[in-house]
Amino acid sequence: MPHMTTIKVRGYHCDFYGHVNNARYLEMMEEARWQYLEVGLGLDYWSDRGLGFVVAGIDIKYKRPAGPGMDLKISTEMTESEGRTGYIHQIFTDGKTGKLVVEALVKFAVIDLRTGRPVNMDGEVAAGFEIIRAASAEGSPE
Amino acid sequence: MPHMTTIKVRGYHCDFYGHVNNARYLEMMEEARWQYLEVGLGLDYWSDRGLGFVVAGIDIKYKRPAGPGMDLKISTEMTESEGRTGYIHQIFTDGKTGKLVVEALVKFAVIDLRTGRPVNMDGEVAAGFEIIRAASAEGSPE
Amino acid sequence: MPHMTTIKVRGYHCDFYGHVNNARYLEMMEEARWQYLEVGLGLDYWSDRGLGFVVAGIDIKYKRPAGPGMDLKISTEMTESEGRTGYIHQIFTDGKTGKLVVEALVKFAVIDLRTGRPVNMDGEVAAGFEIIRAASAEGSPE
Amino acid sequence: MPHMTTIKVRGYHCDFYGHVNNARYLEMMEEARWQYLEVGLGLDYWSDRGLGFVVAGIDIKYKRPAGPGMDLKISTEMTESEGRTGYIHQIFTDGKTGKLVVEALVKFAVIDLRTGRPVNMDGEVAAGFEIIRAASAEGSPE
Repeated sequence: MPHMTTIKVRGYHCDFYGHVNNARYLEMMEEARWQYLEVGLGLDYWSDRGLGFVVAGIDIKYKRPAGPGMDLKISTEMTESEGRTGYIHQIFTDGKTGKLVVEALVKFAVIDLRTGRPVNMDGEVAAGFEIIRAASAEGSPE
Repeated sequence: MPHMTTIKVRGYHCDFYGHVNNARYLEMMEEARWQYLEVGLGLDYWSDRGLGFVVAGIDIKYKRPAGPGMDLKISTEMTESEGRTGYIHQIFTDGKTGKLVVEALVKFAVIDLRTGRPVNMDGEVAAGFEIIRAASAEGSPE
Repeated sequence: MPHMTTIKVRGYHCDFYGHVNNARYLEMMEEARWQYLEVGLGLDYWSDRGLGFVVAGIDIKYKRPAGPGMDLKISTEMTESEGRTGYIHQIFTDGKTGKLVVEALVKFAVIDLRTGRPVNMDGEVAAGFEIIRAASAEGSPE
Repeated sequence: MPHMTTIKVRGYHCDFYGHVNNARYLEMMEEARWQYLEVGLGLDYWSDRGLGFVVAGIDIKYKRPAGPGMDLKISTEMTESEGRTGYIHQIFTDGKTGKLVVEALVKFAVIDLRTGRPVNMDGEVAAGFEIIRAASAEGSPE
């Protein structure tokens, strides 16, 4: 079950065309991922182990525009982690109509902060992911 | 030949981790695309015809981090346009070493601003693209 | 009694120096003002009357840096409105220690959206402000 | 003589209201200040001496809106430095009409990066400022 968060679109999120600018969605996605990582675990779990997250790629599809006042529901879920690569799936829907607004797949690595090199997503990394997944399954606040 | 532009990385482009934030690259890409569209043609060409550009998707790969002081060379080139879909390829390299920093493929549509619907990329649209391509081939200022 | 809202500092709010960038505070202030305007009244009150808000000036003092994980408590209060000029006072404090982080005075006008010209802050404008003030006084959710 | 730089307004600089968002001006001001600091001196002058700049306050007045396509001319000039406080005056004008768009006064300190404490603006600090002022007086590239 994915983690859910909501961001209300404001005038400053939008650009000249009156809709949320395509760069701004990436900030909203980062916000949602931090919230996801905090669920049931806390960010200390990672920093205590000298681990950090690095985004390696984002494949984002803009399906419908979003304007001021829209409640964007953001669903965030880790869909896969194998070897040194993980994927987080993030979907924005219109809170009122449920229609798809944006869909994105985020490719990431977990790095050892001393060396800057990616680590395998097993052991404590996999254990941390498991706790996050279980906490999300219990239901997010919204 | 792609259009080239340069953006010097500043402190405000970066985030807590000391590198250009992944959302910020999309703003830099938008800046480079506007410059590309102006080459040899001007934005009036499109607005005079009631046409606008809409980004439908971005597939971006973050290869190397970039920090303050780095001159990011951005290459922008339309690689394909067929039916109602076009692609612009954008590559960021480190101006000093030439190493690849970010690579992105931007999928876009040209829309009729009255209807909001995508138009076919033929006729005046294709003619406009041809002028931009030719102007870029003559060499960009940098 | 001021309206209170909380924003948790994330990595993307910060710049190369590891602290919330000075431009970013203005976005956080805009977010808090929208929330303030919605309290007990809703934004329709203004748009139904063809009225909009324009920021004429901001005087902001950066007192202490804020880094990732800090809960920024933002207090927002209209302190004065006379003639065609109003002032909103916004204060950021560290949610844990209560220490002052940022203090700002925002000068604004209410404009007639058809003419783009500022209106006097009496009649329906003053009545709207009164409802917001009363709703804030009843206590904000946090 | 102030340092001059130009930024062309793009769609992503603007917000829902079609004009440059008030937070965005602060990023443009930071860009102009970095360029100003580089004139004739280079940023190494400061980092080699373990010195950094901190913005203590900004008093900004929004006089006229700016929309896409406008060339914003930004003038940047250090107007005063006494004790541990300096002021930089930044003015945005419309490149075509010369009309005033935004005017801001930035209060700053120079800090010792090891202690984080402001230093007096004499000795090497004053010498650095003098070189910047002289280089600006010779005329900026635009």
